[in-house]
Amino acid sequence: MSRVPGALWKNLIALQIYGANTGVGKTVFSTLLAAHFTRREGKQRWNLNYIKPVSTGPSSEADDRYVRKYTGKSAYTIFQFDDPVSPHIAARGSQQDPSNEQLLRRLGARLEKAACDSNLVRGSMGIAIVETAGAVLSPGPSGTPQADLFRPLRLPAVLIGDHRLGGIGSTISAAESLIVRGYDIDAVICFDDKSKFENAAYLTDHFGKMNIPTFTLPWIPDLQGSGEEEEAQRMTAYYQTNSRAAHMYQVGGRLIDMHIKRLSSLGSMSARTKETIWHPFTQHKHIEKAADVLVFDSAYGDYFQVKHTDTSLHDVERKEDTTLLYPAFDGSASWWTQGLGHGNPKLALQAAYAAGRYGHVMFAGATHEPAITLAERMIKGLANPRLRKIFYSDNGSTATEVGIKMSLRASCKRYEWTGARHEVGVLGLRGSYHGDTIGAMDASEPCVFNEKVDWYRGRGFWFDYPTFKLRKGRWVVEPPKDMDEEFGPTQYFETMESIFDFDFRGQSPRYEAYIEKTLDKLVKEQHRKFGALIIEPCILGAGGMVFVDPLFQQSIVRVVRRYNFSTTGAAVAPAHELDWAGLPVMFDEVFTGLYRLGRFTAASFLKVHPDISVHAKLLTGGLLPLSITATSQSLFDAFWGNEKSDALLHGHSYTAHPIGCHIANVSLESMSDLNTVDSSWRKYKGDWILNTPADERAWSMWSQRFVHHISKHDRVDYVNALGSVLAVSLVDKSGSSGYSSSAAVGLRDRLLNEISRTQVRIHSRVLGNIIYLMASMTSKPKHLAAVEAAFTEKLNALSD
Amino acid sequence: MSRVPGALWKNLIALQIYGANTGVGKTVFSTLLAAHFTRREGKQRWNLNYIKPVSTGPSSEADDRYVRKYTGKSAYTIFQFDDPVSPHIAARGSQQDPSNEQLLRRLGARLEKAACDSNLVRGSMGIAIVETAGAVLSPGPSGTPQADLFRPLRLPAVLIGDHRLGGIGSTISAAESLIVRGYDIDAVICFDDKSKFENAAYLTDHFGKMNIPTFTLPWIPDLQGSGEEEEAQRMTAYYQTNSRAAHMYQVGGRLIDMHIKRLSSLGSMSARTKETIWHPFTQHKHIEKAADVLVFDSAYGDYFQVKHTDTSLHDVERKEDTTLLYPAFDGSASWWTQGLGHGNPKLALQAAYAAGRYGHVMFAGATHEPAITLAERMIKGLANPRLRKIFYSDNGSTATEVGIKMSLRASCKRYEWTGARHEVGVLGLRGSYHGDTIGAMDASEPCVFNEKVDWYRGRGFWFDYPTFKLRKGRWVVEPPKDMDEEFGPTQYFETMESIFDFDFRGQSPRYEAYIEKTLDKLVKEQHRKFGALIIEPCILGAGGMVFVDPLFQQSIVRVVRRYNFSTTGAAVAPAHELDWAGLPVMFDEVFTGLYRLGRFTAASFLKVHPDISVHAKLLTGGLLPLSITATSQSLFDAFWGNEKSDALLHGHSYTAHPIGCHIANVSLESMSDLNTVDSSWRKYKGDWILNTPADERAWSMWSQRFVHHISKHDRVDYVNALGSVLAVSLVDKSGSSGYSSSAAVGLRDRLLNEISRTQVRIHSRVLGNIIYLMASMTSKPKHLAAVEAAFTEKLNALSD
Repeated sequence: MSRVPGALWKNLIALQIYGANTGVGKTVFSTLLAAHFTRREGKQRWNLNYIKPVSTGPSSEADDRYVRKYTGKSAYTIFQFDDPVSPHIAARGSQQDPSNEQLLRRLGARLEKAACDSNLVRGSMGIAIVETAGAVLSPGPSGTPQADLFRPLRLPAVLIGDHRLGGIGSTISAAESLIVRGYDIDAVICFDDKSKFENAAYLTDHFGKMNIPTFTLPWIPDLQGSGEEEEAQRMTAYYQTNSRAAHMYQVGGRLIDMHIKRLSSLGSMSARTKETIWHPFTQHKHIEKAADVLVFDSAYGDYFQVKHTDTSLHDVERKEDTTLLYPAFDGSASWWTQGLGHGNPKLALQAAYAAGRYGHVMFAGATHEPAITLAERMIKGLANPRLRKIFYSDNGSTATEVGIKMSLRASCKRYEWTGARHEVGVLGLRGSYHGDTIGAMDASEPCVFNEKVDWYRGRGFWFDYPTFKLRKGRWVVEPPKDMDEEFGPTQYFETMESIFDFDFRGQSPRYEAYIEKTLDKLVKEQHRKFGALIIEPCILGAGGMVFVDPLFQQSIVRVVRRYNFSTTGAAVAPAHELDWAGLPVMFDEVFTGLYRLGRFTAASFLKVHPDISVHAKLLTGGLLPLSITATSQSLFDAFWGNEKSDALLHGHSYTAHPIGCHIANVSLESMSDLNTVDSSWRKYKGDWILNTPADERAWSMWSQRFVHHISKHDRVDYVNALGSVLAVSLVDKSGSSGYSSSAAVGLRDRLLNEISRTQVRIHSRVLGNIIYLMASMTSKPKHLAAVEAAFTEKLNALSD
Repeated sequence: MSRVPGALWKNLIALQIYGANTGVGKTVFSTLLAAHFTRREGKQRWNLNYIKPVSTGPSSEADDRYVRKYTGKSAYTIFQFDDPVSPHIAARGSQQDPSNEQLLRRLGARLEKAACDSNLVRGSMGIAIVETAGAVLSPGPSGTPQADLFRPLRLPAVLIGDHRLGGIGSTISAAESLIVRGYDIDAVICFDDKSKFENAAYLTDHFGKMNIPTFTLPWIPDLQGSGEEEEAQRMTAYYQTNSRAAHMYQVGGRLIDMHIKRLSSLGSMSARTKETIWHPFTQHKHIEKAADVLVFDSAYGDYFQVKHTDTSLHDVERKEDTTLLYPAFDGSASWWTQGLGHGNPKLALQAAYAAGRYGHVMFAGATHEPAITLAERMIKGLANPRLRKIFYSDNGSTATEVGIKMSLRASCKRYEWTGARHEVGVLGLRGSYHGDTIGAMDASEPCVFNEKVDWYRGRGFWFDYPTFKLRKGRWVVEPPKDMDEEFGPTQYFETMESIFDFDFRGQSPRYEAYIEKTLDKLVKEQHRKFGALIIEPCILGAGGMVFVDPLFQQSIVRVVRRYNFSTTGAAVAPAHELDWAGLPVMFDEVFTGLYRLGRFTAASFLKVHPDISVHAKLLTGGLLPLSITATSQSLFDAFWGNEKSDALLHGHSYTAHPIGCHIANVSLESMSDLNTVDSSWRKYKGDWILNTPADERAWSMWSQRFVHHISKHDRVDYVNALGSVLAVSLVDKSGSSGYSSSAAVGLRDRLLNEISRTQVRIHSRVLGNIIYLMASMTSKPKHLAAVEAAFTEKLNALSD
């Protein structure tokens, strides 16, 4: 459950006390810290809160009583289990709901109350000490390791070191487990047992290099053999002496400083960003004030943790006790990259593994295990007999340029053109977009994206095509405006699935005739030269989430492969059935591939085997840049020669970087498991598919009922949903459309700034009058249902 | 010390036994495993080796004696310290050399002997059990945590879990510390104490999800109160019963399987790579056999761990007991990226931190702490008042394209050109290279790299220039062939430093006149339009490690900034002194910046403030892709407008990905510390610089003596060294030169395949007749001295 606000308040220092192991003095330190803040001198009054989320063992011996006993302040336990074992065992058979969600909600509410209480007295500050149980990764009641369980709150951590033999190693390992999960460790505490192990000295040095201070506290009195009363006396003396000693002022000062530093950093970030950052794809004149830039403290699962601004608070009473952060559903899947959730500890750990095993290693003339494994996995997953070789690069744009270079070279060789002298273009579809480097831009028709790019030269021809959509509850395939003659009139379908049912639809002589006629005009009449067909299968993404009639995309590949593009006359027959024919066919699956639409490839929807397949974005599960150009033997062979200059002289420094390749392997395996094993997808599929093998069908993570419902809304023109993608075309009452329309902006702003009745805020992106939402592959049905409800609610509000 | 071979032999299974903590049963398991392999049934005979690298406490109670006692086999301790404390304390004042180097060498030799021994009996296999002390990160004798200390060997790990309360958490944390350091964990072992903690059940499930099997072994007899004899009897019985029990066959089987799997994976990788990988910048026809592709098992520090091939073994007697891996100095710094050493645990952990805190988060309209901190750090480090804004992208090529788009737009606006209609080019230097995407390629003159790129259109003009070098012991600045008239005759300098001393050299009226005359011809006579000056400061990298006379580069900037490029007549004066003048000046510091030459910027050598500065490669310390285009306010303002299309519509999905930005922050801070704090650089600087403030001077990590020495070699034409870069131009006896020359290939092959007398192999790259070496920022003088000796040795061998 990650839809809880990050725990940060202005007037409350909330901390989480973790131990390197059990028995290292977490409770003693918590008590000491509580006593310190109770008695801390200075003008600041401190409102004390001690919270034990989970306690096991008899309640008479529980830590909350202990803290109460020595500080005189109230202390609170959320879950108390009598059995002195790990919480995940103790919770079995308990009447309490031990889910992470329940625990986080109750802890969040308790902290919120603490923040509220600290405001009751003017000028007072609160401190909340949240003491964990056992070691950093000891399981919570649900079985989830604590540091994972509590991660959505991302409380600053204080780590109590282990003073015993072996404690240096276990303390550092515990710290590393926190760091891997994105925690900030404010301080390490060592109780100095005066042993000769010198753990504190070592740890001070070690953590000092990481800018984490280590504080040494006097050893805890040895109570062996003490009676209850003697014990109480000795501990009372210990706490009285030490709570006001210099070392506790240092600890307290550090914790206060870190709190102020975090607030000040968050508070200054939007202004600093406005000063220094040139944002991608952004007209900076439109950013009126610094606060228009969202500040992300962190992210977890499907949610960003966003800093509140006056705008985001406009329907929440402005209270100091409201957490400074709010969770927002990442509705663009962070530019279509997100697959396995933000802050995924498995990916984080595996990224570190590859970094620890290799760092980066050069890939020219060399190889390594993650790169070769990923190449083989991709070839297998693509399930396309044409695709045999994998070329690595860094992003969709570079991978597209690689594919263009491959295609053009092969075509120029076969058709005996010289690229440098002849203008060889590409064939594509109107509104295609393949990336922002000049070569990738040149493969797209003139549009707003390249209008003012001075070196842009649109090199090719881009076809019109029919599109499909759900309009007012009916699935339709529509021709572009005034092109009924070319594409036929609007066709109606019972289900989305039937649009993809080629057995049912057959081939389209009309589409093929149109394509052929157009090619004749270009090639035979105008003598134009083409070197590749480049298609985004199923959906044109940046072009406006346009869902193309799959039968048209299938048709254009069929026609191109039988067409004679030679300008010297005779057709050139490919030597082998898997060789490219007509033109190399390149699918840009950067957006649509690798489970974005619920399948490994988008090509499978078209039942087409391209000669080149380009992948990025979800390839690394949404963690870091890596891209792949998968290609055929016949394209590879076009670069075979005696000269180095015959080769594909392309390669970026971090080509096939091991971290990216290894993370891609982990991600693709995880996503494959979701497709085959996980029950969430079964639920999504079940909503769209009846009685047919799920994998052969089109389905969406957005519910059919919701999609149909909003398609009938008066402000909605049409809707599409496929896999994790939802696109809603809004009616622009101003009459403008396309990229320059701003119909969707109002809805986008409401979704973010006005919390819904289902307690959801949504961060979304728009493309002109299209607003779209995208789930990650691990989004839970329950969360998406709440997002759907929020969307419907805010859509309705538009009409008010 | 990382120049030890990775520990992998065909006939020896070498394992490292790590404990989740002290007192978890490492020695009992080691003994049990030893006993198991001693008695294991089957046709395989096992030669047993038990090695305790470091033992503390009385030798009479040491683990080696214990193992010997219960297995009857010999056992070996490398370092024995009597005091029962952590080795780093025990080693103080000891007569032994407790350095990591010493320990690794002795352990390596012992393992090599074990491999050798196992070959004495035909058909026998060896097993080597290397038992660590304490927890995974407990310090070794030098103070280095054990898992770091032993990392160069990268032995497969067996982790003994902690059975106690808190042991679930500490065991997982210990495993994570191993994983962060790139270890493979073959198995987790849990002793089942029948307690109600159920640690084994939890760990089995947890590690099962990571494909690591957990084996549960029967509880160790409780020996409390037993006499010595009784203890011996009970433990003997325990080992006898369990060593041949089914569970130990499972453990043994798993360890054997993993060994075979690793061998088979390494063995098949070159062939699998040849089958599936399309390598960057590679003419595949030149890869004659699969084994020509180097297989990297891993990498650490400055060294790759490379799989031996027949070629690499050609001067080593082919023995089965020679480790299958050899360390090779990464002499190209993995395509000029490597800065802080391969497998750097600090970078690995911090990569995981950013992944755990954010994953990737979208950057359009949003911001996060690592991105803004890095932007500010870059602006500060660049120390150029013109540079105010940071644009993020993924690699040098995309960052260059961004810079080109910025420059052209600004120029076209000021000079009232329309890029789409007018051919606006760039000015640059002959042999420049800025990356492999089409736009970046178009900014370079026609050359071998773009000769067969069909969309390549060289758009611009590229100047000739004088170069500097050390030729036969003398520093010279030379004009290009037959251009004495333009640039003057060869100039001689006492030191490299004096070439950069503009106080001494003054300005060059001759250079400036030449540049101005050339511009007049282009602009006034031919009416050509230019939109940017793009320069690689100091060194043209891919163009062949060409060291340009810094005075010429300074001159061209000076002339361009005062020249009138307007084609409509009147000069356009910039409004502000920090605005670009003449043309935007863009420095491509992808290769030369960020400490590659010993300073934050290469621009500082020229004493020039460019309007755009492009950075990548070392930006992340050599870990993963990220790039930056730093730019001025006046260029930013050129994209300010009412229309979205006025904006810079560029942005990759993973723009400013938090892992990259955070790692860049950590790396830049580390490299800055090396420059200011670390003593190694002081030694390098001291070798080149006398009596002057070090930061204002040119120096190299390659020793002056070595550089001078080889410059006089009969096979060497000239040498350059600056910062971490060494470039040696070889005399090509065939008379060919440049990219198509193969003079350097012979030396490159010898450096890798023939081990030097200093026991070094070097992986290097060549550019035509240039062979170059590059250190990482953390390379130690001692290692570089050994590399220099190897280079000299192999160079001499060429002449034989």
